[in-house]
Amino acid sequence: MLTIKSIRETNPVILNVANMVTPQHVADAINFYGGSPIMFTDEREAAGLTNISSGVVFNMGSTNEATLRNVIASGKVANKRGIPVVIDPVAIGATELRQDNFARAAEAVAFDVIRGNAGEIAYLANVNWQANGIDAGNGDGDVVAIAKKAAHRYHCWVVLSGVKDIVTDGETTYCVDNGHPYFQTNVGSGDMLDGILATAIATEHGLKALVRATATFSIAGELAGEKYPNQPASFFVELYNQLATITDEVIDTRMKIHQV
Amino acid sequence: MLTIKSIRETNPVILNVANMVTPQHVADAINFYGGSPIMFTDEREAAGLTNISSGVVFNMGSTNEATLRNVIASGKVANKRGIPVVIDPVAIGATELRQDNFARAAEAVAFDVIRGNAGEIAYLANVNWQANGIDAGNGDGDVVAIAKKAAHRYHCWVVLSGVKDIVTDGETTYCVDNGHPYFQTNVGSGDMLDGILATAIATEHGLKALVRATATFSIAGELAGEKYPNQPASFFVELYNQLATITDEVIDTRMKIHQV
Amino acid sequence: MLTIKSIRETNPVILNVANMVTPQHVADAINFYGGSPIMFTDEREAAGLTNISSGVVFNMGSTNEATLRNVIASGKVANKRGIPVVIDPVAIGATELRQDNFARAAEAVAFDVIRGNAGEIAYLANVNWQANGIDAGNGDGDVVAIAKKAAHRYHCWVVLSGVKDIVTDGETTYCVDNGHPYFQTNVGSGDMLDGILATAIATEHGLKALVRATATFSIAGELAGEKYPNQPASFFVELYNQLATITDEVIDTRMKIHQV
Repeated sequence: MLTIKSIRETNPVILNVANMVTPQHVADAINFYGGSPIMFTDEREAAGLTNISSGVVFNMGSTNEATLRNVIASGKVANKRGIPVVIDPVAIGATELRQDNFARAAEAVAFDVIRGNAGEIAYLANVNWQANGIDAGNGDGDVVAIAKKAAHRYHCWVVLSGVKDIVTDGETTYCVDNGHPYFQTNVGSGDMLDGILATAIATEHGLKALVRATATFSIAGELAGEKYPNQPASFFVELYNQLATITDEVIDTRMKIHQV
Repeated sequence: MLTIKSIRETNPVILNVANMVTPQHVADAINFYGGSPIMFTDEREAAGLTNISSGVVFNMGSTNEATLRNVIASGKVANKRGIPVVIDPVAIGATELRQDNFARAAEAVAFDVIRGNAGEIAYLANVNWQANGIDAGNGDGDVVAIAKKAAHRYHCWVVLSGVKDIVTDGETTYCVDNGHPYFQTNVGSGDMLDGILATAIATEHGLKALVRATATFSIAGELAGEKYPNQPASFFVELYNQLATITDEVIDTRMKIHQV
Repeated sequence: MLTIKSIRETNPVILNVANMVTPQHVADAINFYGGSPIMFTDEREAAGLTNISSGVVFNMGSTNEATLRNVIASGKVANKRGIPVVIDPVAIGATELRQDNFARAAEAVAFDVIRGNAGEIAYLANVNWQANGIDAGNGDGDVVAIAKKAAHRYHCWVVLSGVKDIVTDGETTYCVDNGHPYFQTNVGSGDMLDGILATAIATEHGLKALVRATATFSIAGELAGEKYPNQPASFFVELYNQLATITDEVIDTRMKIHQV
């Protein structure tokens, strides 16, 4: 079983092709959780940095020709070496460029995990959803069905974030009931989860590690929300405190997961 | 009248051409205030993202050929569709590049709001001011006269930030007396106000909406400063808490504005 | 002697070629300490912005062809005008690109200060060290010998950050015993110190100014750590509070330095 202790002892190096908005938050989340983040901008060091990493995260939020080249260059090396790849199709419903660049990444690289909100995962599952911009939007689709469909299509694990988080390999599916509304009030919560998922499966590969990492992040948020019920920014600072100090005992006690 | 309630119900999407220093703060400010931020880097999605937005913010702090192209591509679509445009001429007094790029943007795009400090607005008004780098500098000019002159020159609203904020359309001018010295102690306060102004006029177009939004941000700072009188970084976290939870009643009670 | 009072009165403009992860933290650190930060992305304004600056900081964490050009363009002007140059060889052990780009910068520009962790400075000193990614790694080298060797090789001051910080010109060497483990828990602490060092020597040039600035940052961390012993993110907010309000009396009382 993936433990916080093992993550902190492993201290895996996690390489990021980050977006331009939240890189500090993502690096902090990886670091506080127990990993060691690196980011880069020049394609020529993609292979070298991937070689010394134990996990890679591709955030498509600031997609452009240069960042796509970085994704593909790093992803190919990661695939060859069996280093897990997490990708986040940020706001993929919003523009053709995001759709084209994700498709080009998917052609060149096999993903281990796709993480997104309901609108983003619905797009990947070819399910109609009112995705508008970066938020999840509202829709009537069944999030479990959507997540499973995307997992089948891309032959990978899918983590669909929302009030309830869905974690699936397309066959076995878990629902994580932990969480707090202030995650959505803070820009970059999803991006941070990407980094946490990569750190988790860099330490122990498997669906259950993803489930536990998702729950851990949500529980850290619950603890923060209990301390700062009406202060969403204080919540965020405390989320980090909790992420850095949470124990396996607390996770075991509070984790609310069930198979669906 | 623009209310916080209406902003939160409208939840307008605000598109940003951000600088490289403060994008997280700007996104957070928009989000905590009640809007929904998006940022991008690739010109090819400028039109698509502008089309789904209700307001756009152009921060010229990291101006270069690529960001200028993004500004012009997004601004033209915004103008055509009547989407309000806020521009921030960051440190325009500092280099010819900033001056040239602002001029090129102004040739191609009509602005709804220019927001800057006294030194930046003075430059746009052709008034001599000791602007040096990113800070306002000190000078003897009359800030009301400067703001009005810039408003006339660019046919738009001007928000001049300082100890007192000036909000003008060139004819009608308001002075906002709310505020706190710790805004200047935190890098990006002005950039955050840009996003708040765009969110405000995306919800309700008009000079009075700009005045109320400027006052709201300043009042959030006053409340934060009262809670953390000697802790400028705690002030900043609390500024976000206040921005996310402030009510119209508190704004009405504390707002200190007068026409000049 | 360099005093906090003199820094705040001088309020030196510090120009940064920043990395893409921590620019907000670096700008905040400079600002809270008493300087005035500027950042830029377009080579064409490198000379103009350097001319109005009193110190420059080159962070090589997001090195690429564009940022290297910015480093060289700004560095040449800084050298010509006697403006102090601080460079941070982030993760230089990790890739050839980082090594080549640092070498190209070193060919074109004379540095006043190199700041890095043990692994980074060991690389520059041609000493074998297990540098892996961005963290210091563990090794058996003598940090004092490494710092002195790098100082001799690059004819500049070296600040080697770690549990103990080493500050040397190659002949005279100080050890700063102040500090707190949570500096390493927060991504960007070293980058922030780069900005603080530049602000310090922009105010008063000299090895002793570097020693005092290094101690000041460490003492601010000690004070933060005493207030938030088990909350590494609250530590970080409080680090800023302390940096903004620390007095020379507190620095004098707590500073633990000795010549080695």
